[in-house]
Amino acid sequence: MTTSIKASTKLGFLGAGQLARMSALQAFRFGIQVAVYSDRSENEPVQFMTPFSFNGSFDDVDAMVEFAKTCDVITLENEFINSEILRKVQEQSGTPIFPSPDSFALIENKLIEKQTFENAGIPVTPYKLVKDSVDITDFGKQYGWPFLLKSSKGGYDGYGNETVKNLTEAAKAFENLGGHEGHDILAEAFVDFTHELAVQVARNETGTMVYPCCETVQENHICVAVLSSAPVDESIQQKAQELAVKAAEAIDGKGIYAFEFFLTTDGEVLLNESAPRPHNSGHYTIEGCVGSQFENHVRAVLGLPLASSKMTKPAAAMINLLGTHNRPAEADHISEALATEDGHLHVYGKVQSKVGRKMAHFTLLGDDLEVTHQRAREITKSFEI
Amino acid sequence: MTTSIKASTKLGFLGAGQLARMSALQAFRFGIQVAVYSDRSENEPVQFMTPFSFNGSFDDVDAMVEFAKTCDVITLENEFINSEILRKVQEQSGTPIFPSPDSFALIENKLIEKQTFENAGIPVTPYKLVKDSVDITDFGKQYGWPFLLKSSKGGYDGYGNETVKNLTEAAKAFENLGGHEGHDILAEAFVDFTHELAVQVARNETGTMVYPCCETVQENHICVAVLSSAPVDESIQQKAQELAVKAAEAIDGKGIYAFEFFLTTDGEVLLNESAPRPHNSGHYTIEGCVGSQFENHVRAVLGLPLASSKMTKPAAAMINLLGTHNRPAEADHISEALATEDGHLHVYGKVQSKVGRKMAHFTLLGDDLEVTHQRAREITKSFEI
Repeated sequence: MTTSIKASTKLGFLGAGQLARMSALQAFRFGIQVAVYSDRSENEPVQFMTPFSFNGSFDDVDAMVEFAKTCDVITLENEFINSEILRKVQEQSGTPIFPSPDSFALIENKLIEKQTFENAGIPVTPYKLVKDSVDITDFGKQYGWPFLLKSSKGGYDGYGNETVKNLTEAAKAFENLGGHEGHDILAEAFVDFTHELAVQVARNETGTMVYPCCETVQENHICVAVLSSAPVDESIQQKAQELAVKAAEAIDGKGIYAFEFFLTTDGEVLLNESAPRPHNSGHYTIEGCVGSQFENHVRAVLGLPLASSKMTKPAAAMINLLGTHNRPAEADHISEALATEDGHLHVYGKVQSKVGRKMAHFTLLGDDLEVTHQRAREITKSFEI
Repeated sequence: MTTSIKASTKLGFLGAGQLARMSALQAFRFGIQVAVYSDRSENEPVQFMTPFSFNGSFDDVDAMVEFAKTCDVITLENEFINSEILRKVQEQSGTPIFPSPDSFALIENKLIEKQTFENAGIPVTPYKLVKDSVDITDFGKQYGWPFLLKSSKGGYDGYGNETVKNLTEAAKAFENLGGHEGHDILAEAFVDFTHELAVQVARNETGTMVYPCCETVQENHICVAVLSSAPVDESIQQKAQELAVKAAEAIDGKGIYAFEFFLTTDGEVLLNESAPRPHNSGHYTIEGCVGSQFENHVRAVLGLPLASSKMTKPAAAMINLLGTHNRPAEADHISEALATEDGHLHVYGKVQSKVGRKMAHFTLLGDDLEVTHQRAREITKSFEI
């Protein structure tokens, strides 16, 4: 266990978006320096928060090795880098990467991910690797149409997924998703669910910290709100938490992980997706929990003891504030959000706003979940960015 | 009232120490960019947190104007710049500075400060401008020896002050403090007090937010702990809060201000010092209050509605963690501080540790003030940095 923090410690982020940004704020709190490697040409938020900024592709091992050599430890803020590349960067730079390339290899491919979690005894959404139209037809017969086709690699907020209603659509989706270029394509059944749940788990050599089970409220496959703890039976919350801890153990995770579940109409809890990084579903933890997912991300990768995941108030509602205009970013009509006691506005510092882009979020704490959620929606409904 | 935040907004700090650092973290939360102008050669914490870093003297108007022109608004993190220089920087750059040069001019000189607050009906520690040994002798007769001699300009944690026991010591101190070089020297009586109190006030065109009245626990003129709310009668707390608001109004302050008081053995509340910036006595507000002094510093200077100053738990104890070694900074024996629920460690990121230098702090929240304070002391007593 690390029992000290050296002032010169430098934490490197592969990726420079809002997740790196909010993690960097926690690193700074411990007096740790932050470096960032971005594959975007646009100035990303974290690039305004450090003098140590690198640009390059996520395929360029040499460039990432040069970056990694300037850092004491490296972490990820997205899943867009291949585990084999991560392994090379780690070996050639000598700088440890967490989540480790080994852990990452178990979840970067959706097929391996499903198998890993199934092998650990975690129920997952019904799926099958489909190679051709016979497989697709069989899957439709077994689980019914429509269902999802997913590329085994990639996928973020609905990208890399297609809903297919019949064989014609499925054939088209199979091609769109790269099925003919050797990408593994999974068919995944729609399950009838009452709630989508999520649980964050922080884990390192000092222990494991599991966050409350929250509900993610989705519209058009985009998360619009997160409610914590989820308005479901405590036994269901505990079940999701247990499965999340089991899943983090199954990949021997070091860092912060998010696990998303379906609560089916039959009362089953099925693991749907995992993310080896801070996750939108955990933004409420900044004010909603004693130690946020970002704080525990930083602590976990540095080998420090983990912070408490206990909630600070009975209820937390987080509203995602998506771009409403295509324009230079400007958050308007925010007075009420700023003036509301127990309301906390976060603006991500992205230079350009685009319709639907994640630009900001608002967390409201309260005593009653439904009241808090409704109030948070009211407060943010005229928000423009 | 500003009802929007533009992504490209840049907040400039004159000074790059831990107060700018903790304020910058709040600016980042709103997606605002930070630039810093430092007069130190050593790499200061905030210089690791921005690509927009300038070095220069606090006397160099031209350099500060160049810096200010790159920013949308400028703020201070110390009192080491002359108000006349600030005025020139503001005029020549066109960039507003808060606290304004006018506000700052009313408190930068200890004599004018005392007069300003007295004129506003705020009781202050007994003082007199002393020109020579006759004045000094008279003051000793009226208020008794020992007393304090203070240079009217400068002064920070006991620097710029000397305690004098007799005329010989006073003559020496008068010279040390620059009395023969035209510096105004104030004599200030020691008052018998039971507690030293402090109150933060945030203020701008949208309103005023007053923080709880806390106690600053001093050893050898250095603040070692802050307890909130102060263990004194509620009527005393309210009195200090009222005087603090009145003082902020007296200087037409825009920004965050700290006011320090003596609670005398007679039960009087006397204003002792003021600071036009975030203050060590308000560090506990980061976790102890809904909106911290740093958040309200940023909100106030940007003209945004202010955050609630309500406490998040009944009690907060903040322990200053001073340098224990002269060495490259390394915070040791921090496991317990990190692992304690409701404990919050902040390390300032200073590269070099020096014995007695403010390097970090630890805030513990709890239900009972005395228990929380004792526990916070226990947890931090083996801390080394």
